[in-house]
Amino acid sequence: MENELELKWDRLRRAMVAEGVDGCLVTTNRNLYWLTGRVVNGYFYLPAEGAPRLFLKRPAETGIASTAIRKPEQLPEAFAQAGLPLPRRLMLEDGTLPYNEYVRLQRSFAASETVGGSQLLRRLRMIKTPWEIEQMRLSARRQAEVYRMIPSCYRPGMTDLELQIEIERLMRLHGSCGVFHADGINMEIFMGSLLAGANAEEPSPFDFALGGAGQDACLPLGANGTRLEEGMAVMVDMAGNYTAYQSDMTRVFAVGQLPGEALRAHAVSCDVTARMERTARPGVSCAQLYRDALDRAAEAGLAANFMGTRLQAKFVGHGIGLDVNELPVLTPRSQDVLQPGMTFAFEPKFVIPGVGAVGIENTYLVTDEGVEKLTLLEEAIVPLT
Amino acid sequence: MENELELKWDRLRRAMVAEGVDGCLVTTNRNLYWLTGRVVNGYFYLPAEGAPRLFLKRPAETGIASTAIRKPEQLPEAFAQAGLPLPRRLMLEDGTLPYNEYVRLQRSFAASETVGGSQLLRRLRMIKTPWEIEQMRLSARRQAEVYRMIPSCYRPGMTDLELQIEIERLMRLHGSCGVFHADGINMEIFMGSLLAGANAEEPSPFDFALGGAGQDACLPLGANGTRLEEGMAVMVDMAGNYTAYQSDMTRVFAVGQLPGEALRAHAVSCDVTARMERTARPGVSCAQLYRDALDRAAEAGLAANFMGTRLQAKFVGHGIGLDVNELPVLTPRSQDVLQPGMTFAFEPKFVIPGVGAVGIENTYLVTDEGVEKLTLLEEAIVPLT
Repeated sequence: MENELELKWDRLRRAMVAEGVDGCLVTTNRNLYWLTGRVVNGYFYLPAEGAPRLFLKRPAETGIASTAIRKPEQLPEAFAQAGLPLPRRLMLEDGTLPYNEYVRLQRSFAASETVGGSQLLRRLRMIKTPWEIEQMRLSARRQAEVYRMIPSCYRPGMTDLELQIEIERLMRLHGSCGVFHADGINMEIFMGSLLAGANAEEPSPFDFALGGAGQDACLPLGANGTRLEEGMAVMVDMAGNYTAYQSDMTRVFAVGQLPGEALRAHAVSCDVTARMERTARPGVSCAQLYRDALDRAAEAGLAANFMGTRLQAKFVGHGIGLDVNELPVLTPRSQDVLQPGMTFAFEPKFVIPGVGAVGIENTYLVTDEGVEKLTLLEEAIVPLT
Repeated sequence: MENELELKWDRLRRAMVAEGVDGCLVTTNRNLYWLTGRVVNGYFYLPAEGAPRLFLKRPAETGIASTAIRKPEQLPEAFAQAGLPLPRRLMLEDGTLPYNEYVRLQRSFAASETVGGSQLLRRLRMIKTPWEIEQMRLSARRQAEVYRMIPSCYRPGMTDLELQIEIERLMRLHGSCGVFHADGINMEIFMGSLLAGANAEEPSPFDFALGGAGQDACLPLGANGTRLEEGMAVMVDMAGNYTAYQSDMTRVFAVGQLPGEALRAHAVSCDVTARMERTARPGVSCAQLYRDALDRAAEAGLAANFMGTRLQAKFVGHGIGLDVNELPVLTPRSQDVLQPGMTFAFEPKFVIPGVGAVGIENTYLVTDEGVEKLTLLEEAIVPLT
């Protein structure tokens, strides 16, 4: 783990030097985990030159040198005690720290200039280390094991929520951490999404690939109590959070016989995916991958069903790691190209009114030559009986 | 529901007038729910005088007049279209909006002065409406039903996590929304906390009443895989999130015979609770309730076990509603006094090294004369067999 952290610190230091920043102070959970290997209560500081230091409001065993503090106003004094020069240009997490906590840190480092660092941290986290890739492989393996057992959860007459609850239990028994991490103050989701029947068309306020009305107005997303009936597609897109690093996978299950249109749309999703697997490699643009997928959907006469009907998501894939929605995003306007070490989910999905959603999602690692699929599980629609 | 919202809007308007604020713009989920009855993707604006308006990035049916926008920079133009004057002093959510989103809104309303409103909103949300109290009663009733079934989840040889997973399933089957809302950017918890044996002493980075090592370094809190053995206390403090408004309740279960010290400490917790129930009424200070509890713990020779051992929480209760950690907080330094319509959890707990944690937690409504307990369930330690 120590080498792992050194690797990340070195990359962050180089980025700081390039930006003319003297130090970076991090205090929100995902960035703390990325830079220290665990969540602590306090601040992690990395100078552009020299060793990092933790300033802890609660004691924790981390292997990183630390100083105890009670509040951020004590940071300059604690820096002096630790022999750390105060940064002139300090990088802070402008995208995840609340306004008043950011301003409180600005005031604590009175004379310093502060610059936002969240986007830079997102771009560093976009390229995974070998250890991070191993964690994602482990999550993907466990996620596939759980998905394989989904038919055993089904009983005729169940609702979508009842089926989801049994899957949640299986996930937890196989090591799911429970909490489903997504980047963005308003991006809430419980343990994933299960959509069946007409509910797959329902728009949701959340920027996930598909919607669903949900259980309650405080979280309008996903399963809504729909009774699973003959002819419904059941799309399962539950979290792959079996380590801190997530995988993302979607498979479709069928109650009885699905209409031909749904079967055909599922086959188109598999085709779109196979095409992406052939063309994706370092240097290929994320925007091109989106356009290719949309073009194939249009050729198949399914543009109006692609990524939703009443509301259509404008992406077909997304980076993934500690958060389910990392960089890059496969949108028509993305400026990113694939790079080795990126990990992303690809999810060309189609909503068939009254039937449900069909299509597959897999998680990929970008290698030197192309992409490697991490979520290994058969992709055909699985009957529920 | 419409009267419900009018009630809240009126209270917010009066508070804005008192603060010299012309309008309040809200966009984070809990405040959106509080002010509109649901989570939407966009902004809710309430002027100090006149009707509210939603500015929506995704369409939603709310019953509130709305204007579609794509990005916050369009807000001034959308205000003009809707005939709304631009606020000179605009209140924003400084405690929950990320720094860069707050600044983006400041820039969009170029000429305006902005003031932080999160603390004001917290203080308004502290006093519940009759409808909110009904929602909390409903959550408390379902939470008690689930807790009553906990012994049926137990099998000898289980780990703490395995028991918790079966409780999670029961919770979900009884309508738990799943997601456990806590205020604060770094306050993460899955569906609650179950602590047994030596794990109850483990400190955690999170500001909840007790700790526990947790499953993974990305969420070091709660159950950690401890095998449940003879002589262990199992403290169950799982979420009461059966509506958007939570109740909070803790009960203790025993594997075999607990040592006398644990039984005695549990009785002290019940005594401390009974004393609070006799003394709490409008006008009583929250600091006094904390000091009373600590004094009783000290008289019983249990000060070193009160609210933890290696790390001791400095509160014995907390407001609760849409978030599990609302105002007031029952700490030694609180300036708050109880007021009718407040709802709070009271949780005098003791950690007994090697055994686990004991004590009870209940949720109360402050009435005109005293407090009313909402979480009605026997409070003695329940044997697991």
